[in-house]
Amino acid sequence: MIVLFTDFGLAGPYTGQLEAVLHQAAPGVPVISLFADAPAGQPKPAAYLLAAYAVWFPAGSVLLCVVDPGVGSRRRALIVEADGRRYVGPDNGLLELVLRRAAAARCWEITWQPRLLSASFHGRDLFAPVAARLARGEPESSVAARVAPLRHNDWPDDLREIVYVDHYGNALTGMRGDCLSDGARLLAGERRISHAETFSAVPPDEAFWYVNSNGLVEIAVNGGRADRVLGLGIGSAVSPLP
Amino acid sequence: MIVLFTDFGLAGPYTGQLEAVLHQAAPGVPVISLFADAPAGQPKPAAYLLAAYAVWFPAGSVLLCVVDPGVGSRRRALIVEADGRRYVGPDNGLLELVLRRAAAARCWEITWQPRLLSASFHGRDLFAPVAARLARGEPESSVAARVAPLRHNDWPDDLREIVYVDHYGNALTGMRGDCLSDGARLLAGERRISHAETFSAVPPDEAFWYVNSNGLVEIAVNGGRADRVLGLGIGSAVSPLP
Amino acid sequence: MIVLFTDFGLAGPYTGQLEAVLHQAAPGVPVISLFADAPAGQPKPAAYLLAAYAVWFPAGSVLLCVVDPGVGSRRRALIVEADGRRYVGPDNGLLELVLRRAAAARCWEITWQPRLLSASFHGRDLFAPVAARLARGEPESSVAARVAPLRHNDWPDDLREIVYVDHYGNALTGMRGDCLSDGARLLAGERRISHAETFSAVPPDEAFWYVNSNGLVEIAVNGGRADRVLGLGIGSAVSPLP
Repeated sequence: MIVLFTDFGLAGPYTGQLEAVLHQAAPGVPVISLFADAPAGQPKPAAYLLAAYAVWFPAGSVLLCVVDPGVGSRRRALIVEADGRRYVGPDNGLLELVLRRAAAARCWEITWQPRLLSASFHGRDLFAPVAARLARGEPESSVAARVAPLRHNDWPDDLREIVYVDHYGNALTGMRGDCLSDGARLLAGERRISHAETFSAVPPDEAFWYVNSNGLVEIAVNGGRADRVLGLGIGSAVSPLP
Repeated sequence: MIVLFTDFGLAGPYTGQLEAVLHQAAPGVPVISLFADAPAGQPKPAAYLLAAYAVWFPAGSVLLCVVDPGVGSRRRALIVEADGRRYVGPDNGLLELVLRRAAAARCWEITWQPRLLSASFHGRDLFAPVAARLARGEPESSVAARVAPLRHNDWPDDLREIVYVDHYGNALTGMRGDCLSDGARLLAGERRISHAETFSAVPPDEAFWYVNSNGLVEIAVNGGRADRVLGLGIGSAVSPLP
Repeated sequence: MIVLFTDFGLAGPYTGQLEAVLHQAAPGVPVISLFADAPAGQPKPAAYLLAAYAVWFPAGSVLLCVVDPGVGSRRRALIVEADGRRYVGPDNGLLELVLRRAAAARCWEITWQPRLLSASFHGRDLFAPVAARLARGEPESSVAARVAPLRHNDWPDDLREIVYVDHYGNALTGMRGDCLSDGARLLAGERRISHAETFSAVPPDEAFWYVNSNGLVEIAVNGGRADRVLGLGIGSAVSPLP
């Protein structure tokens, strides 16, 4: 399985061109779009989102990860193997939390070069062909050389910010659920927010936090949009109260 | 074929995770996203939309139907077999019109339990694995026990409300076309609206109603967005004029 | 491979129904959604977008092209074979630039008729079944008869307008990159815009133009949305400065 984690959008031409490359270069391998709306151009919040969702996929999956504001600059292109999953993406921090949380990880710089490399769409021209080769069973060494990735040791283990707002207006933080006890309260959008197990456990229009189905602390409003009610967007601060 | 009818959105992580479960549990079965933007958290309008579109699919299709504001509460999880199609979804009215309009229907409560069941994402953890088993040919009885579904006899046969606004701003009602004669006029958004066969039959910027390609009465504006021009959204009243 | 180029949107019922028809009529043929948000109801800007992106696909691809405001009127339905690719769509100018730029092209009017043809959804009922037959290897002559397409000789070779705004707010013009030298400046949204190779070559918040990965002149803002910063939308004029 090849899993797409990008900020490309689904409707435009980008995800379709990725899929076209993958279907041609790795025929018959299922391609799943996990996120096409990862934080646009922001590898840091995207890194916390990716790390939480990637581990849900089985070992053997190839994750094609492109949040790449530096495309066309000299940032490196990486393959990371972490706990049996392979990740292909830019060396800009997007894979930092995957690397940090892995029991075992290895990293390669992509040395393979396509015949044609556009300046602005390495997802299509470089990362997707490499992901397809890995999904077909080629070894990393056929397209890449071992390197140490750029690390971001100053980034926290859990990010006290909103990293994604979903289709319902629910606001996902970069904090894992085991950071917080059920009695904890959060300060977000100038409101104090208590825990509930599920939507149906709180009155209509009330805000609450819960641990979502991929282990992240998420802020929601029963029957409403937390992003609008609380004024939250990507980057908004979320603080556990003492 | 497995057909998705949800309010999950396409871009976020939800539809992708559904598809990943389905591809693993029912390899090679095509997965079609019919609606990922069914009325969010509103099973009643969604039920009229689903009933109109589901019958277009061939017998043998499995429809995975998730508009589920009560996820995490004690609402039951159902399988409905109606006229040769199987539906998997919550027992909250979403399948009411499918049941009512079926020539023959049977209903089961899902008794199978996954190893891990999140509180908030039964679509991924419960409904999708069951849909995959049905699509692979397993009998309903392997995962479910016969029950009578909760019925909503007070809901009308046709809903005089907007149940969906599409990409073009066209507003779909919950009324089937055979409710109305071609001479009928509708009151919607304080405007009287006459029938036309097709867009090209009315002047630019004029509102009209027609029977859409799945048999629902739909309100449109030639060259414009009916939702904006007429102020229509999900739940807006639409009344046939005497 | 069957490639979708439509203004149907992805979330609604339209693309899903297209895919259902294609999976049934051409099982195992990959279906790629290239654009589901081509300029809604506007064949002219859509024609420049299509011509630029279609040539990226390999010979043998079938492109299902539906931007069709005249659906239900008497406009013809076409198959165009151009440089080894087949296009299926309405005879309304959408294929004008594909025809004009092809080294060799032939055109057929679709004469095949489905058992049921809705007035408003020829994409599903007419164009998709024909695209599936071509993708399965049936000859054009089995469903269509040779004709001369309606031509739009008054349309320019390159369109000095915005034809698409992508997910990031980048604004694509209908001009190919070889129209302009790197020293050229553009007037767009009352601003003078210079060339840069890539985002990372300009300061944050600065507008620039570049040739995108499919050869179109595109206007972007480093770290911002060009559509909002410059007030650009589909149809906005873009003029090379003397």
